[in-house]
Amino acid sequence: MKEVNHYKVGEQVDNYLLIKSVTKGVTSNGKPFLTIMLQDKSGEIEAKLWDSTPEDEESLCPQNIIKITGDVTSYRGRNQLKIKTIRLATEMDQVRVSDLVESAPINEQDVIETITNYIFEMRNPKIQRITRYLFKKHQKDFMAYPAATKNHHEYVSGLAHHVVSMLRLAREIAALYPSLDTDLLYAGVILHDLGKVTELSGSVAAQYTFEGKLLGHISIMVNEVGTAAEELEIEGEEVTILQHLILSHHGKAEWGSPKSPLIKEGEILHLIDNIDAKMNMMERALNKVQPGEFTERIFPLDNRSFYKPEFQSNDAKVRS
Amino acid sequence: MKEVNHYKVGEQVDNYLLIKSVTKGVTSNGKPFLTIMLQDKSGEIEAKLWDSTPEDEESLCPQNIIKITGDVTSYRGRNQLKIKTIRLATEMDQVRVSDLVESAPINEQDVIETITNYIFEMRNPKIQRITRYLFKKHQKDFMAYPAATKNHHEYVSGLAHHVVSMLRLAREIAALYPSLDTDLLYAGVILHDLGKVTELSGSVAAQYTFEGKLLGHISIMVNEVGTAAEELEIEGEEVTILQHLILSHHGKAEWGSPKSPLIKEGEILHLIDNIDAKMNMMERALNKVQPGEFTERIFPLDNRSFYKPEFQSNDAKVRS
Amino acid sequence: MKEVNHYKVGEQVDNYLLIKSVTKGVTSNGKPFLTIMLQDKSGEIEAKLWDSTPEDEESLCPQNIIKITGDVTSYRGRNQLKIKTIRLATEMDQVRVSDLVESAPINEQDVIETITNYIFEMRNPKIQRITRYLFKKHQKDFMAYPAATKNHHEYVSGLAHHVVSMLRLAREIAALYPSLDTDLLYAGVILHDLGKVTELSGSVAAQYTFEGKLLGHISIMVNEVGTAAEELEIEGEEVTILQHLILSHHGKAEWGSPKSPLIKEGEILHLIDNIDAKMNMMERALNKVQPGEFTERIFPLDNRSFYKPEFQSNDAKVRS
Amino acid sequence: MKEVNHYKVGEQVDNYLLIKSVTKGVTSNGKPFLTIMLQDKSGEIEAKLWDSTPEDEESLCPQNIIKITGDVTSYRGRNQLKIKTIRLATEMDQVRVSDLVESAPINEQDVIETITNYIFEMRNPKIQRITRYLFKKHQKDFMAYPAATKNHHEYVSGLAHHVVSMLRLAREIAALYPSLDTDLLYAGVILHDLGKVTELSGSVAAQYTFEGKLLGHISIMVNEVGTAAEELEIEGEEVTILQHLILSHHGKAEWGSPKSPLIKEGEILHLIDNIDAKMNMMERALNKVQPGEFTERIFPLDNRSFYKPEFQSNDAKVRS
Amino acid sequence: MKEVNHYKVGEQVDNYLLIKSVTKGVTSNGKPFLTIMLQDKSGEIEAKLWDSTPEDEESLCPQNIIKITGDVTSYRGRNQLKIKTIRLATEMDQVRVSDLVESAPINEQDVIETITNYIFEMRNPKIQRITRYLFKKHQKDFMAYPAATKNHHEYVSGLAHHVVSMLRLAREIAALYPSLDTDLLYAGVILHDLGKVTELSGSVAAQYTFEGKLLGHISIMVNEVGTAAEELEIEGEEVTILQHLILSHHGKAEWGSPKSPLIKEGEILHLIDNIDAKMNMMERALNKVQPGEFTERIFPLDNRSFYKPEFQSNDAKVRS
Amino acid sequence: MKEVNHYKVGEQVDNYLLIKSVTKGVTSNGKPFLTIMLQDKSGEIEAKLWDSTPEDEESLCPQNIIKITGDVTSYRGRNQLKIKTIRLATEMDQVRVSDLVESAPINEQDVIETITNYIFEMRNPKIQRITRYLFKKHQKDFMAYPAATKNHHEYVSGLAHHVVSMLRLAREIAALYPSLDTDLLYAGVILHDLGKVTELSGSVAAQYTFEGKLLGHISIMVNEVGTAAEELEIEGEEVTILQHLILSHHGKAEWGSPKSPLIKEGEILHLIDNIDAKMNMMERALNKVQPGEFTERIFPLDNRSFYKPEFQSNDAKVRS
Repeated sequence: MKEVNHYKVGEQVDNYLLIKSVTKGVTSNGKPFLTIMLQDKSGEIEAKLWDSTPEDEESLCPQNIIKITGDVTSYRGRNQLKIKTIRLATEMDQVRVSDLVESAPINEQDVIETITNYIFEMRNPKIQRITRYLFKKHQKDFMAYPAATKNHHEYVSGLAHHVVSMLRLAREIAALYPSLDTDLLYAGVILHDLGKVTELSGSVAAQYTFEGKLLGHISIMVNEVGTAAEELEIEGEEVTILQHLILSHHGKAEWGSPKSPLIKEGEILHLIDNIDAKMNMMERALNKVQPGEFTERIFPLDNRSFYKPEFQSNDAKVRS
Repeated sequence: MKEVNHYKVGEQVDNYLLIKSVTKGVTSNGKPFLTIMLQDKSGEIEAKLWDSTPEDEESLCPQNIIKITGDVTSYRGRNQLKIKTIRLATEMDQVRVSDLVESAPINEQDVIETITNYIFEMRNPKIQRITRYLFKKHQKDFMAYPAATKNHHEYVSGLAHHVVSMLRLAREIAALYPSLDTDLLYAGVILHDLGKVTELSGSVAAQYTFEGKLLGHISIMVNEVGTAAEELEIEGEEVTILQHLILSHHGKAEWGSPKSPLIKEGEILHLIDNIDAKMNMMERALNKVQPGEFTERIFPLDNRSFYKPEFQSNDAKVRS
Repeated sequence: MKEVNHYKVGEQVDNYLLIKSVTKGVTSNGKPFLTIMLQDKSGEIEAKLWDSTPEDEESLCPQNIIKITGDVTSYRGRNQLKIKTIRLATEMDQVRVSDLVESAPINEQDVIETITNYIFEMRNPKIQRITRYLFKKHQKDFMAYPAATKNHHEYVSGLAHHVVSMLRLAREIAALYPSLDTDLLYAGVILHDLGKVTELSGSVAAQYTFEGKLLGHISIMVNEVGTAAEELEIEGEEVTILQHLILSHHGKAEWGSPKSPLIKEGEILHLIDNIDAKMNMMERALNKVQPGEFTERIFPLDNRSFYKPEFQSNDAKVRS
Repeated sequence: MKEVNHYKVGEQVDNYLLIKSVTKGVTSNGKPFLTIMLQDKSGEIEAKLWDSTPEDEESLCPQNIIKITGDVTSYRGRNQLKIKTIRLATEMDQVRVSDLVESAPINEQDVIETITNYIFEMRNPKIQRITRYLFKKHQKDFMAYPAATKNHHEYVSGLAHHVVSMLRLAREIAALYPSLDTDLLYAGVILHDLGKVTELSGSVAAQYTFEGKLLGHISIMVNEVGTAAEELEIEGEEVTILQHLILSHHGKAEWGSPKSPLIKEGEILHLIDNIDAKMNMMERALNKVQPGEFTERIFPLDNRSFYKPEFQSNDAKVRS
Repeated sequence: MKEVNHYKVGEQVDNYLLIKSVTKGVTSNGKPFLTIMLQDKSGEIEAKLWDSTPEDEESLCPQNIIKITGDVTSYRGRNQLKIKTIRLATEMDQVRVSDLVESAPINEQDVIETITNYIFEMRNPKIQRITRYLFKKHQKDFMAYPAATKNHHEYVSGLAHHVVSMLRLAREIAALYPSLDTDLLYAGVILHDLGKVTELSGSVAAQYTFEGKLLGHISIMVNEVGTAAEELEIEGEEVTILQHLILSHHGKAEWGSPKSPLIKEGEILHLIDNIDAKMNMMERALNKVQPGEFTERIFPLDNRSFYKPEFQSNDAKVRS
Repeated sequence: MKEVNHYKVGEQVDNYLLIKSVTKGVTSNGKPFLTIMLQDKSGEIEAKLWDSTPEDEESLCPQNIIKITGDVTSYRGRNQLKIKTIRLATEMDQVRVSDLVESAPINEQDVIETITNYIFEMRNPKIQRITRYLFKKHQKDFMAYPAATKNHHEYVSGLAHHVVSMLRLAREIAALYPSLDTDLLYAGVILHDLGKVTELSGSVAAQYTFEGKLLGHISIMVNEVGTAAEELEIEGEEVTILQHLILSHHGKAEWGSPKSPLIKEGEILHLIDNIDAKMNMMERALNKVQPGEFTERIFPLDNRSFYKPEFQSNDAKVRS
């Protein structure tokens, strides 16, 4: 099936697409119409449904998959889809949301095994039990959610992808600085963004939830650690320190952490988080450009354009 | 009994005093001595105990009351107490810590009644039950603790003093803006600093506790609201909003609130907190100076010196 | 008369409207036309007058009221008015600007009485005379002007509305903190924004004047207090303190006050100003949304969206 | 007469000195004494007057000149003066304050002529009259006051020194950019700091006055321009622009100007002020060090230490 | 030849213009077209070339001059050029880029003589030789380049214009403060922005080069001074100080200078740079408005609108 | 030989120590004396040499080793050394500076081998040659210098210690993100602080040099890469990118990098630098405290006190 980004003006579309957003309008002669943003893994295309009915408005909701036919036209230099037929996909079409959205290049079973192993390695039973309890509790959402609504790891399973990368970084860095407590580092990595499953609305086209807006993923998870400790009847400074690691992982008050890290593993957790988030953003932007070019500006990286050196591609040839 | 701030050089002291801090030293010929900071309601005086014994070091701890005799001398322009005799006070001396430290000009029974009434007035049963539960749980410490280690209301029962003043402000302001929900305002006022009883070490010479340093009073109380709701089996947006009011009451991330107020009562709570804290600091500094003078610099008020107008005292005469 | 926000595409307009702004254009075949923004209390609508004459350009000025007929069409999703007939309204049409613009929910006579009473209560004759003199001098404009061109109280009589609310706050707060000098507080409230009548161009669609841009309402009124004192032959620290209250009421240099408050009543004036301005913004934004919804972003409140709790509406039902 | 900075330990002093400050103390055996800071043009020395009487305390006030004899000793590495005899100087001693304090290297008559000439050159009569009026009004203090209590031109006649240097800069810069209006530039220079004569307490050991603290020299002079214009019956935008030049000459809100310059001569006035103030600070600090050395840190220049190149001194030899 | 800014809708164009930028598009029926931005000294106009060929795309490049005929139409309120004929200009057309772009009001030979004279006046041979060497090396580009891509002196020869103005300022200021070393000041002025010839892509429509983006003109020229010193076999603190003057001329780290000036001539260089850049921006904006009007907002001057006084024009009449 | 930190009051010293600093003073009776700060690996002690001679002043310079005998006394609570005999150590005493100062726990030969290996692994010959050239050029100082005058790695061989740790981090992180170019990362690590050998005065008690103050280690090394490339006749973007990596490694303008990283390896270099510097500071501060305690405040880490958990020590016992 041809992807939407590869259609040219004049071609005919016959395809399954995911509805990303819908806006209702009225023409100058008073007739209602819908502007529907459709997507697949390759990108997005705008479609107009003229003379829409109330039934259309109800059924054509975001996150629904539709079967559509139509013509590709151009409007102000961008492709547009002139709809001929449109209907909701059904079970029998056998198209899943995951077929139409970007997702992390990871295997669910591997991720679960990996994280389970890291938890298994922990030696302090209090830290281990709280971490395991909360991971199990949110495991399903953890596997599906993005790590953010935009910026980095903002795709299906982005959260799991981010955590697994950070765990590997944590292991290697701890090997170089043996004074680092791996229990704290691993627990910090696994729990630090777990509140995202409450802060965000879902795995696809995620929005901030009511709790997300009023409390934020940091406070949400600090609370959950407290509740988990009560339920597991665990006491001791480990509980406070786990809460502190989550609370402080943004590093500074103005970045959202009311307390800066006061445990060395917390400081390192903050830096590991930075490395993995920045690598994710830089690599994805650089993948879109050729050697010798600059990327588009990356807003969360202070709006910088990164350069892709020419000589690296040459080296690569030499190496292979 | 004469207070320490009123002794002159050359006078003899025979008095009960509270130990505020103790530092051990060694003279140039190798003999140990103790530098003891002693206080009563009027202020502080330094005393030196020469040739101190290990028993002295153990018994002369901060927060203990001692009976002391000695001479007032002057060292580098400040009074100093040359100890003749010193012993720990006992039950039979009938001197209490509260006799020797500054405390709020409030009556415990009145405060409890006042707050109980405000809680009683609440109409939303979820907000009422959580507020009552947490107030009851911490009532004893709430009555004794200061509102801070320094700056404003930093005396015995300062927290209760601060909360009662804020409740009155809240009632009057809500009367002028009827859209304000008094349930949220009163609950916010009562709970906003209640985490101080965990953040600080006690009612006298308070220090930050381990939990205070790693989590802070805001996160501590946000967690407690969550736990209270679970124990009381209360659900609904009221719980999240109460947590949000506490979380946001410092107003901005850089002032310690990871979320700014998103509920109008939260914004007003922040401003009421400001008014009462600032009035407390300004009034106490202005009480120490005469009309026509400037106060000493007040650090938390951007280091300003406030002016006490001359004409106000004149007016006052006219009025009386 | 139907208001402009309630017309639907296809309906015919026959109405009095206020001209808010006019822009001249030229069509591709060289014919002049006018784009006229029209408003009534409900909102705004754009109209096009094709083949406009020089006379049209001269008469169709901002702040004029016109009688218009035409059809409502839609252009790029927004309603537009296709003009059939348009003429200036005359005395005989008996339509006033105040019929077509939002204005404060206050009664002019009440406001004057209220403020006169507050001035009457003052005990210091110097403060009283300067305040009365300046209030009388600007009374007419004070009653009509907005408190700002945008953000808060930006409607007809917004300034008077703001001042009366602040006076009530001042009275209640001073009752709770008796050390506050009500003379200073009331005078500060009445004078703090009075320079707006010089800073802004008028009561409707206000722009910044030349003096407003170069000096600002704060410096303008500080100067006026000085001149008033000379004319009234008043001397003494009261004059300097009144000037200081005005000068410092924005609180900090970066907010426009070259001196921060050094008088406790100045600090409280700043906070009262904050409470009333913020309540005005929050209430008006919240009035536009349903319980359970967030408001649009409010730029001067750090671009926050405020939440309207669901349970409040429920409570309200219980209460009534 | 030997200056205080040139005395060595063990020498005997017999000299006239100015009292800069006095602090009262009490010895450990209860006897009062005075710590007196004395100065002449070369620097300062601390003196102790043991067993001081109430008469001593009254007569030995700051700004008085005394005749003193005593011995130079050393205390903690700094010279100290052990007083043998001390008495107030009288008319007959024929010593003036100006003999004992640093003052600008300028001649009063020259300054007055220079400034009178610049005013004479002005072509706009409104600007000329207001400037002349205010200069005449404050001429005596203008000639004696420092430009600041510290940092730059903080010596007798420093204000006049600063203004004359800036006028010369203004003339040369305007010659290079003929679009600059010299009337505005000269008037701006002459008036910009004239409010210092009200903001500061006097020409020697200046303190901030009550009006200085509550209004500041900028607001004070903006007001005076307004009053002067009324008295001279001058109207028109010249008045507002002169006020704006003064109001904006610190350049930005956070540097004390509630309005940034909106007239190009105001922007240049701000930069000329910067050049002259910084040259004054840099030259005086560099005069104290040898080629190849760094100066002490200069706090108002971002705490920088400036370097005095070695090759410049060599060049100088070549040139002579 | 009529300039593009003076054409009215309906007129016919027959003119030489410079191509500023070209964008390729495709119509909704799939035909390619070019949107060409054309300019002369008076401004810019957009042209559409429908049914463009691959040859068109290749030849119609930015910086080429073309001969064009067509009609002026209006599209969304802006003039547009409907192309009839278009061809590249040839040598025989005798039109130069300099005829079509704004350039500094300076004469190349005068500039070279002026700068040569300033260099000739230097007394320190090390400073003189390095400055002369680098000026000669880049003389050709120095004469043609702008001083920036936007904001100030952003036209052909803007860099030379800026430097010559600054040299004159430097001479006059040094005459008023004789302690200033003119060798350092002149060398600093001549070299401070010379790195722009490497940082920018050319004299017209300049872009940042690869080296410009990764190193910036400051680091580029600091390096060149080092290399020049090696090639000329010059050693001594003069080399380091010249590098420091360039390195520090933006004044502060956050403005791009990793070291703040530590040589007094460096501080003055920074202020002279400010004066000339700001005068250039203010004068050009003020030239576009009438007395009594405000300029458009000037972004690099903190987005201020400057006012052009009315009385200045009156004065001017009096003067002439 | 007993170390200075372990002496008690009353004990006799007979020891070799390093002079860290010397200050000259004069007693109240006019006799000169020297205050000498002495150190060994364990810490510092102050000594007084009374009645010092000009010969003493000349010979007792910082960085000299002396043989000293005397008594340990106490002055204001700190130990002080009352000198009996003091003489410069000679070759025959066989005491080296390295015996008396803290130095990195690394072996010189290992470091050289390690770094040589990393250079050997590089595949791009231009990067490899420049890195090897500069490393060889400064190898001797690189092995001896600290990485800073204070804060982190501020001991002998601190620079080498820091670089070797960072190389290991670089290798492990690059293994996890294969898109990272190890040539750039390794070269960046080796060169990033190499300018310190010019910025600082030596390996012990390092001060900032003249070049260090005026240019800083970043500009110094950017220049050296340029010169090295010329001498090695290397051209191409590799040179600019190496300069950029050094220039940008502080991350932001306000942290001393006029360009932020625009190459992904530069961003990672900055983060690796952070991790190793912070681990060094945190580990050394935590080594001084017991489990359950907070460290002293660490100024460069935003003045934080870090907590050493109690349970870690318990875990450690379990593990061993």
